Amino acid sequence: MERVISGGRVLLPDLTIRETDVLVDTERGEIVELGDDLAGDDELDASGGLVMPGLVNAHTHVAMTLLRGYADDKKLDAWLQEDIWPAEAALTPEDVRVGTELGMLEMIKTGTTAFADMYFQVPEIVDAIDEAGLRARVGHGVVTIAKEADTAHDDAAESIRVAKEYDGAADGRVRTAFMPHSLTTVATEFLDEYVPQAREAGVPVHIHANETADEVSPIVEEHGMRPLEYAREHGLLEPEDFLAHGVHTDATEHELLAETGAAVVHCPASNMKLASGMAPVQEMLDAGVTVGLGTDGAASNNDLSMFDEMRDAAMLGKLAADDASAVPAEAVVRMATEGSAAAAGLPGGRVEPGAAADLIVLDLDAAHLTPAHDLVSHLVYAVAGSDVRHTMCDGEVLMRDREVLTLDEERVKADAQEHATALVDRA
Amino acid sequence: MERVISGGRVLLPDLTIRETDVLVDTERGEIVELGDDLAGDDELDASGGLVMPGLVNAHTHVAMTLLRGYADDKKLDAWLQEDIWPAEAALTPEDVRVGTELGMLEMIKTGTTAFADMYFQVPEIVDAIDEAGLRARVGHGVVTIAKEADTAHDDAAESIRVAKEYDGAADGRVRTAFMPHSLTTVATEFLDEYVPQAREAGVPVHIHANETADEVSPIVEEHGMRPLEYAREHGLLEPEDFLAHGVHTDATEHELLAETGAAVVHCPASNMKLASGMAPVQEMLDAGVTVGLGTDGAASNNDLSMFDEMRDAAMLGKLAADDASAVPAEAVVRMATEGSAAAAGLPGGRVEPGAAADLIVLDLDAAHLTPAHDLVSHLVYAVAGSDVRHTMCDGEVLMRDREVLTLDEERVKADAQEHATALVDRA
Repeated sequence: MERVISGGRVLLPDLTIRETDVLVDTERGEIVELGDDLAGDDELDASGGLVMPGLVNAHTHVAMTLLRGYADDKKLDAWLQEDIWPAEAALTPEDVRVGTELGMLEMIKTGTTAFADMYFQVPEIVDAIDEAGLRARVGHGVVTIAKEADTAHDDAAESIRVAKEYDGAADGRVRTAFMPHSLTTVATEFLDEYVPQAREAGVPVHIHANETADEVSPIVEEHGMRPLEYAREHGLLEPEDFLAHGVHTDATEHELLAETGAAVVHCPASNMKLASGMAPVQEMLDAGVTVGLGTDGAASNNDLSMFDEMRDAAMLGKLAADDASAVPAEAVVRMATEGSAAAAGLPGGRVEPGAAADLIVLDLDAAHLTPAHDLVSHLVYAVAGSDVRHTMCDGEVLMRDREVLTLDEERVKADAQEHATALVDRA
Repeated sequence: MERVISGGRVLLPDLTIRETDVLVDTERGEIVELGDDLAGDDELDASGGLVMPGLVNAHTHVAMTLLRGYADDKKLDAWLQEDIWPAEAALTPEDVRVGTELGMLEMIKTGTTAFADMYFQVPEIVDAIDEAGLRARVGHGVVTIAKEADTAHDDAAESIRVAKEYDGAADGRVRTAFMPHSLTTVATEFLDEYVPQAREAGVPVHIHANETADEVSPIVEEHGMRPLEYAREHGLLEPEDFLAHGVHTDATEHELLAETGAAVVHCPASNMKLASGMAPVQEMLDAGVTVGLGTDGAASNNDLSMFDEMRDAAMLGKLAADDASAVPAEAVVRMATEGSAAAAGLPGGRVEPGAAADLIVLDLDAAHLTPAHDLVSHLVYAVAGSDVRHTMCDGEVLMRDREVLTLDEERVKADAQEHATALVDRA
C-alpha cells in the first residue's frame, strides 16, 4: 500500500524546509518519493504542519517509567542503593512489560520512533515492541561485580543469548546488542570472555562509559590508562558500538572515538539531575565523533520526551563550552535524528527517498511557536512533545491526531499505575 | 459572586496534597474557604486534577516573544549588538503591545498568573495586561551608558514617571517598579539621583545584577567592592527590591541579600542558553535569601513556560552544587510560587483562605505523569505547560478547558506573526 503525507512542509536532511508531499510504501516501510500533489491509497494530513524524521532515543531503560518520581533529589550512590536497585530487584517480568508499554506510549506521543534500551526481561520487551510498532535496539544489561562467579556468568550468557535470539524480531524492527553495564561494573575477564562472543554473533556492544568522575579514576589507577583506551584494549570501540554518557572524556578519548567510529550517546538531563557533570559535546563534534542523544531512564529525567532532551543538549552544551555559540540548534537536531540512528545502528533519521518511513508530523500553530522566524531553532528551543500530531514508524501510523493506535492508552496507564503501586509496596 | 473549584486535589502551602473544594470570592479576588462539597454561583471542574497556586514569572521581558528564534546560538555580545538591540530599536508601540499579548497568551496557557516585566512602551503593556487579566509588576528599563546625558535623563525620568502613573492600574493588578537595567549599564550618578525618587514614590527597584562574570570585574576594579555591596552603597537592596540573575555572587553577597531582604530571581534557562554560568542557588537558599524564578525574555529561553523553568532550576541547581540532592523539587515549587510572589512583591503563591485567587488546575491523567508516586516531583520534573486545564487570576477565569477567554488566540497569533515579519524586514 502507498500512503501519502500531504500538505505539509518537510525538514530535509540538509535542514532546509520544503513544501512537499511524502509518499511512503507501507510494505517496505520506506519513503518512496517527495513531490507535489502525490496520491496514495491512504492519506495522512500534514496541513500547516512540519514533517520531520522521527526522533531516536539512543540510550534509555524504558521500563523505568514505573519508577518515575519514585525517588528524586538524592545523591547518586544513595539513590541507587536505597531506592533504585531494591525496586529493580523486585520487578517481575510483567512489571517490565507494563513499564515498557508505558514508556513506548509516552515516546509515541512525543515523537520518538526508535530507541535503544538496556534492561532485563528482554523477551517481554521484544513482545511489547512488536505490539507498539516502534523500532529498537534492545539488550540485557550485565553486572558482574559483587556477584558470585556463576551468577555473573549466567547474566553475561543471557545477554549474549537474547542478543542472538531476538536480532531481527518484530519484522526486523528489533535489533539487539550485547550490553555489559559499564566499564566499572563488569570485570575485565568478563569483557575478555564475552565481547568476542558478541562479535561472533554479529551484534554490537552498548555500554555506559565515563558517566561520573568516580568511574574514571579507578580505571586510570588500576590499569594506567584512560577508560576508553582500556575499553579498546578489551575489545570494545568497534565502529558499530555505542557508549552512553561520555561525560568525563578527554581529547585523547575523543580522538580514539573518531578514529574507531564508535559513538557516544549524550544524556544531558540525566547528567544534570544526577549531578554527573557536563559532557564536552562541542569538543566531541569538533573531533568528528558520532554523537547521539538519549533520555536515559525516566527515574533520572523524569520524562522520555526527546524534545526536552534536545533543549537540554543545546543549553548544557553551551554551558560546558562556556560559549553561547556552541552546540547550535542544527547540531542538536542532527544529534537527535541521524546522529542517534547512526549511534544505535538503526535506520531512520532522514526524510528522503529510500530512507525508512519513520516520521513525525508537528503542529506549528501555537502561541509558543509564534512567530516562525526559524523552525530549526523552534525544534530545539520551543517545540514540546505535545506538539506532535502524527507518529509513523516503518510506514505504519502509530499515532493519528494524537490518538495512539497500537496501544490502548487508558489500559496502559491503569496497568502501569497498578503495577507501580504494587512494586513500591513490595520493594 | 462565589466560584467553587470542585472535585480536585489541592496543593497546600506546606506542599501536602488534600482532596478538597476551593471557594473563591470573585469580587475580592480572594480564596474564601477550603472544604468538602462547597457550593458557589459558578463552578470550575477540577475532577481528576490538581489545584495549585498560579506560577509567578518574576523576571521577563514579555514583548521579546516577537524575537523568539530570531537569533540563537550566538555569543552574548554579538547577539545583543548585531541582533537584539537593532531589532528592539525598531520596535513600535504597537509591536510591544502585540508581543506582550502573545507572551501573556503563552503564559495563561502554561499556568503563569503573574509576572514581572522590564521593557518599554509601558502604557501599551499596562493596557494589554488590563485586557488579558493577569497580574504584573511592570517598569521601564533604563540604560544610561553610551548615551547623551539629556537622553539618559529622559530615560530615567520616564521610568520614574510610569512607575508613579501606573501603580495600581488594571483594578490593582498592575504594580510598578523603577527599573535601571543593570549595575554596569546605568552610571553611578544616575542611581544616586533616581533611586531616591523611586523611594519617595514608594515603588521598589528591579535591576539585573551579577548576570555574567564580565559584569562583576569592572565593578570590583572601579569601586573596590563586590557588585551587591556597590548596589547597597548606592541605595539599592531595600527589602522590596529584586535582582535578576545573581549568577556570579559570593557568600558575602548572599549574606547581604539575606540581611537586607532583597530577593534574587533565578533564570536558569537564560543562564544556560547565553552561557552566563550557574547561579549558586542552594547556597543562596542556605543563606536565607528569598529566591524567585523567571524565564527572562523569550529570545534567550525560548519559551515562557514556568514548568520548563522549574525543571531547569532543579537540574542546574544540582550541577552547580555538584550534589544531586541540592535544589530539590520542594524548593523549586516554592521558588516558582511564593518565592517569586515575594520577590516581585505581588500577591499569590499560596492556596489558603485569604490569599489571592490566582490558581491553576492541572490535568494529571497522562502517560508522562504516570505513575503518580510523588506529585511534587511531577510538578518539577514531568508536568508540561500543556497539562494546564484552567487558569484563574484575581478570581477571574482566564482559561477554561484550555480555551483562553480574555484574549482571542487566533487574532493574537496572526498579529504577532505579521508584526514580527515586518519588524525583521525593518531592522
